Amino acid sequence: MVVGLVETAVPAAKSTVSSAVKKPTTLSSDPIINVARGDPTIYEPYWKKMGDRCKVVIAGDEFMSYFCNAMNLCWFLLPELDNAIRTLHRVVGNAMVDDDKFIVVGNGSTQLFHALLYALSSPDMPEPINVVAAAPFYSSYPEETKFLRSELYKWAGDANCYDRDEPYIEVVTSPNNPDGSIRGTVENREGGKAIHDVAYYWPQYAPITSKADHDAMLFTFSKATGHAGTRIGWAIVKDKVIAAKMVKFIEVSSIGVSREAQLRAAKVLGFIADDCRNPDVKGENFFEYGRRLMSERWGKLREVGMKSNGVFSLPKYPRDYCKFTGEYTDSNPAFAWLKSKEGLNCENLLRDESKIISRGGPSFGVDSTYTRVSMLSRDVEFELLLERLAAVKGTVNGN
Amino acid sequence: MVVGLVETAVPAAKSTVSSAVKKPTTLSSDPIINVARGDPTIYEPYWKKMGDRCKVVIAGDEFMSYFCNAMNLCWFLLPELDNAIRTLHRVVGNAMVDDDKFIVVGNGSTQLFHALLYALSSPDMPEPINVVAAAPFYSSYPEETKFLRSELYKWAGDANCYDRDEPYIEVVTSPNNPDGSIRGTVENREGGKAIHDVAYYWPQYAPITSKADHDAMLFTFSKATGHAGTRIGWAIVKDKVIAAKMVKFIEVSSIGVSREAQLRAAKVLGFIADDCRNPDVKGENFFEYGRRLMSERWGKLREVGMKSNGVFSLPKYPRDYCKFTGEYTDSNPAFAWLKSKEGLNCENLLRDESKIISRGGPSFGVDSTYTRVSMLSRDVEFELLLERLAAVKGTVNGN
Repeated sequence: MVVGLVETAVPAAKSTVSSAVKKPTTLSSDPIINVARGDPTIYEPYWKKMGDRCKVVIAGDEFMSYFCNAMNLCWFLLPELDNAIRTLHRVVGNAMVDDDKFIVVGNGSTQLFHALLYALSSPDMPEPINVVAAAPFYSSYPEETKFLRSELYKWAGDANCYDRDEPYIEVVTSPNNPDGSIRGTVENREGGKAIHDVAYYWPQYAPITSKADHDAMLFTFSKATGHAGTRIGWAIVKDKVIAAKMVKFIEVSSIGVSREAQLRAAKVLGFIADDCRNPDVKGENFFEYGRRLMSERWGKLREVGMKSNGVFSLPKYPRDYCKFTGEYTDSNPAFAWLKSKEGLNCENLLRDESKIISRGGPSFGVDSTYTRVSMLSRDVEFELLLERLAAVKGTVNGN
Repeated sequence: MVVGLVETAVPAAKSTVSSAVKKPTTLSSDPIINVARGDPTIYEPYWKKMGDRCKVVIAGDEFMSYFCNAMNLCWFLLPELDNAIRTLHRVVGNAMVDDDKFIVVGNGSTQLFHALLYALSSPDMPEPINVVAAAPFYSSYPEETKFLRSELYKWAGDANCYDRDEPYIEVVTSPNNPDGSIRGTVENREGGKAIHDVAYYWPQYAPITSKADHDAMLFTFSKATGHAGTRIGWAIVKDKVIAAKMVKFIEVSSIGVSREAQLRAAKVLGFIADDCRNPDVKGENFFEYGRRLMSERWGKLREVGMKSNGVFSLPKYPRDYCKFTGEYTDSNPAFAWLKSKEGLNCENLLRDESKIISRGGPSFGVDSTYTRVSMLSRDVEFELLLERLAAVKGTVNGN
């Protein structure tokens, strides 16, 4: 089996803990737990509780045509999804979605990242354009940029070390994957282009301090609501020519995006927006629920998982005023970015001492004292993770 | 707006006839009809008639994980779809689907074509591998191969003219798009690789003479059943390494394929298979319906559209024994491949004299006396097409 580098690297068939796993008696007898990937199953119980309110029903004769809306630049975008995306961003206040901005839907934001590389590069340039990101960067960017060996663009590594006097695209992830930091571009030269990956800029992960308003922003349904099996991402794009090139990319790559998935995303995003706007009707809205859950998990991680042994440290995040909740709130990133004591290989340490599969620093462009652990797993897996982290002694260093 | 070359080229907003269009009084006052693309809306009435029998219902908490089936090589393939695909091929007898063959699902067969280019090429080769197809070939292959300027593969044109002593991939479409011919490879050198696009190898388009059994075969939901808004294609692949590379491609491109679309495809394909296996229960099965409809349209095209003016000719197709229907049947291709008299530009002639937008020969690697016209439009559009074709005089040649 080919082992993938993307967020959801192909799992070894037997490596994931099943939901039937009970509290183990000894660590050595435990199954491996895989928190290398960011599978957002944490939100499943919420959507189960919502029951029929987010159900979609699709008749056999719906969506027969390739075309959704021939009047729209993005001709394969379902109008209901366009509307739900804009409405939700207005309710949350996390992105500018004026009517003159273009929404381009993709098969996940991964396809839109590829589409933006295509849209921001040009066959008329003498050399491939350099693609950079400040380390630690999302581990999939290098592979996504390199794997087809395009002559349009090439991976040029850590933006902090970039010193070529050549055209470039900087990929900025904020809040950052893997470390949750809030970021801007580090390169600010004239003519520089940027892709803003704001997948985690939602209230459950970070305070919403202002409306993001960049030239090209990427969001994904999977991280917003947890629906990762629904491959829906969207780009908010200022420039019509760039948006049109992205549409062209998706046309040539996959002739659009499945309407069923778009309909479901529209339903769920619309439901959340309605729920946020009518707080008197029901209990917690999705973001309140998500923020409480993430906050509890981060509390437990710091209390139980970290404090007992001194092997690891975690980044610190400043509190900030969240305009969505109207309170000062903490960052509760989707990943824990663990750093072990110098001289230890953090990924190997977790694997060999605790049977925890994480993703080590080198995948993100930094050293092996770091590793990334998902905070979005199911409860049973998260509790097991805490218990194992608490028991790590740092005596094994399986390099 | 960027104008696309793929099957579903972005339509000019006002260029399509609406279903409300009535029989026109004068041709010059008519709207343009666009039959350049193969939008398979012909089957809509059938699926409307099937009503709730192909309805799918998806709850809010379904399909949350990236993973469908971690035990399967294609970890994002819904087991229900895998099963429905294999069952339908067994019922129709159009492809070998032994248990040792791999099914890879994609966002339409377009994504799988890209995945196969990636899987059949190698970064270790000194030069990009040549991609060829015998003209007339599907107009999107050149663009799909060229648009990212990959160093892994490059478009090398008409397979009939290919004489380089270098590695190559031959793309074979059978029945062929645009001309409906039944084809095999034209290059048969040692070490040559092939992609078999068998999108149209279904009983409504051609007699099913044997089970296709090539190394890598591409099918698509859109042409099989008409569900083009559901971006589902599948590859049937013999070699595990090739299948794994395709899975890797889809992982890096889009992290899999939306589960909602897969569920719907599974439902519809499963419904057709059941219906074909239980012929005593109901009336016409989908393929009988489709074959009758296509046969009627081809009859009308020959009678009404062609015979009156002598400007055009059509290819002839041999009758053959169809093992699925148990009868000798005709080919009723999804496209009419019109040839005008020498000296005429067939695409321009249709456009200027009849406001019919078609796709001219040069897009398919042949001369401009040819043009391709979709046979899969809605009834109202098809009837208008017939009427206009019958009125063509061949006096305008808008080069």
